[in-house]
Amino acid sequence: MSHPIIACLSDFGTRDHYAGTMKGVVLGLCPDVTLVDVSHDIPAHDVLSGALELAACYRYFPAGTIFLVVVDPGVGSARRGLAAETADHRFVAPDNGVLSAVFAESPPRLVVELTERQYARPTLSRTFEGRDRFAPAAAWLARGLRVSALGRPVSDYQRLALPEAVLSEDALRGVILQVDRFGNLISNIDRKTFDRLATAGGLEIQVDGHAVATLVSTYADIPDGAVAALFGSSDRLEIAANAASAAAQLGASRGSVVLVRRT
Amino acid sequence: MSHPIIACLSDFGTRDHYAGTMKGVVLGLCPDVTLVDVSHDIPAHDVLSGALELAACYRYFPAGTIFLVVVDPGVGSARRGLAAETADHRFVAPDNGVLSAVFAESPPRLVVELTERQYARPTLSRTFEGRDRFAPAAAWLARGLRVSALGRPVSDYQRLALPEAVLSEDALRGVILQVDRFGNLISNIDRKTFDRLATAGGLEIQVDGHAVATLVSTYADIPDGAVAALFGSSDRLEIAANAASAAAQLGASRGSVVLVRRT
Amino acid sequence: MSHPIIACLSDFGTRDHYAGTMKGVVLGLCPDVTLVDVSHDIPAHDVLSGALELAACYRYFPAGTIFLVVVDPGVGSARRGLAAETADHRFVAPDNGVLSAVFAESPPRLVVELTERQYARPTLSRTFEGRDRFAPAAAWLARGLRVSALGRPVSDYQRLALPEAVLSEDALRGVILQVDRFGNLISNIDRKTFDRLATAGGLEIQVDGHAVATLVSTYADIPDGAVAALFGSSDRLEIAANAASAAAQLGASRGSVVLVRRT
Repeated sequence: MSHPIIACLSDFGTRDHYAGTMKGVVLGLCPDVTLVDVSHDIPAHDVLSGALELAACYRYFPAGTIFLVVVDPGVGSARRGLAAETADHRFVAPDNGVLSAVFAESPPRLVVELTERQYARPTLSRTFEGRDRFAPAAAWLARGLRVSALGRPVSDYQRLALPEAVLSEDALRGVILQVDRFGNLISNIDRKTFDRLATAGGLEIQVDGHAVATLVSTYADIPDGAVAALFGSSDRLEIAANAASAAAQLGASRGSVVLVRRT
Repeated sequence: MSHPIIACLSDFGTRDHYAGTMKGVVLGLCPDVTLVDVSHDIPAHDVLSGALELAACYRYFPAGTIFLVVVDPGVGSARRGLAAETADHRFVAPDNGVLSAVFAESPPRLVVELTERQYARPTLSRTFEGRDRFAPAAAWLARGLRVSALGRPVSDYQRLALPEAVLSEDALRGVILQVDRFGNLISNIDRKTFDRLATAGGLEIQVDGHAVATLVSTYADIPDGAVAALFGSSDRLEIAANAASAAAQLGASRGSVVLVRRT
Repeated sequence: MSHPIIACLSDFGTRDHYAGTMKGVVLGLCPDVTLVDVSHDIPAHDVLSGALELAACYRYFPAGTIFLVVVDPGVGSARRGLAAETADHRFVAPDNGVLSAVFAESPPRLVVELTERQYARPTLSRTFEGRDRFAPAAAWLARGLRVSALGRPVSDYQRLALPEAVLSEDALRGVILQVDRFGNLISNIDRKTFDRLATAGGLEIQVDGHAVATLVSTYADIPDGAVAALFGSSDRLEIAANAASAAAQLGASRGSVVLVRRT
């Protein structure tokens, strides 16, 4: 039988002990788990980044994978802890919207509030629920516990307002949601919406008013020094340069406006 | 039977191959080990940080876990290599005090100098004993070797002078020891000592002369823009802001003075 | 039976989901694999750095280890994907020279182009072949597939021009190839070539014209504030300081000239 997988995503960074401590707690409860670090370098307190990075990767993990997601600026407050299951995966996270982007694609079959105290550590720190509540809950799932055993079902969990691209007759207006390590600017415009605009004729694309070259297939097709649009690995419109940072070249960042217009 | 666990803590960073090379050496000797990265981003050469991060996490790992700790500015010099065991855990590290904070809580039952050459790599680099001496020693422990087989017992190992908080009749004076990724300032004042001062009446808390709000329960209780004190996940007094950096707001860092006074 | 090992080296960083997504793909195909992160922090697009870090670590991994190497500025272009085997190890990587430094030491017994579509994901992104082509190929090797099954043999794969040190009658001229996390400057001068120059008499060593102290055994032997040369853990001449950055002290970086002269 194969090992259960717990994939970790947090904003704890890797300089401090926090991520390691959570892994220790998991291993204490479920020694045969396969632990995978997705990222601990989500920008501090940035729930939207956590939501988007999680949504970009979860479907590539095997069915049954448990995601332990701790981007938790409200730790210790009245905000709840959640466990959830979609068709293929399970999630443990604070109730702050960090699962919103996953749920938008894969509606949850069950979401529970983590109310069953016996599946948390005996002492609950008000500043590190990742260690005392979320890691144990994920480990219990890895041991075979069902999501329903972790607490009572809830339907009023938090949802992030994920900005959507707006399609008008001759234009499509979106925003940059993520800037990756390479300086690629990833927008909220998906290929399907784009194709509804782009049926015929020419197009121009602007980022915060700067025109960029339209639609190449990959980074290497972009002339040196230029910036161009393409569809990235999550099938969203991305503004990029060739082995250089489009973000730096355009001075663009999250929230920058992307305008696609018929010409 | 469950896999042995080796948890790694170093200042090697993750850009260079050093941490990966150590993991390769471990796997060559003990293929069924579960390797856990606690942190490789301890600030370069910062033995005190290594000691404190290790002490903050070790007790959350299962009994039997072996910690491979390589923060080693004296690599290749006459400083010794050590293996140690406490009631529940084992450690391999250079003899520079990096185990001091663990030993202060969990006195070692045995500390040996790594003298048995057959448990090191045949060629010993003078600049990378993590690869040639410490990783193999940890892997041999994971294979079932006892600590006592790695070398001769020593009792004169290095101890860091960990600064202690000073309690007087109406005040408690400590220092900031760690600044975490979020900019939380973690002091050397533990809850027990604090409670001895704080039996009755009002209190004020200053960091380098700046007054901070006293004793909230968690970050989310701190008003935006304010800085307050709370007890963090290791039960030590911590100066924090709400989804912001207390370190940046106060201009404080390791060594900053924390003063708690009766009013 | 022990688990197959896949060791990952990339320039994806750890803030974005890319490295985690590759690990998810691998686990979906080969659940019992042991995944090891060597580094995901190779500088973006820096194929030479990737080649050198890989060459510094691969031989310390057990025979049979599969290296998944994705530093890939040409992703999605006509550049090919490769799988290769040397006497002890296997590699999956883009055909951009990132395996050159390994091959210089361990000539490959077989290099194939990744042409067999059934061992890639059904949909191939033009911007993330790490996910869709390289991770699956590595996972199939871990499942027991032979390198030869992944595609057709090639011999005209890319080779990086790795700069070599030049030995003249009374001098040896090299360059700095890597600057590690500690600020140590690692040159392309190996001990064997150095020894051919250094048979008798005095020596002087300069980095970009700055004289440095000659040949200590380890960092701790260097006086505070000084910079000295030593042979590092890969047996190459390294310019270092004691618990400080030689790179910062000398203002040196990759490409800086190292001159060794008889005096």
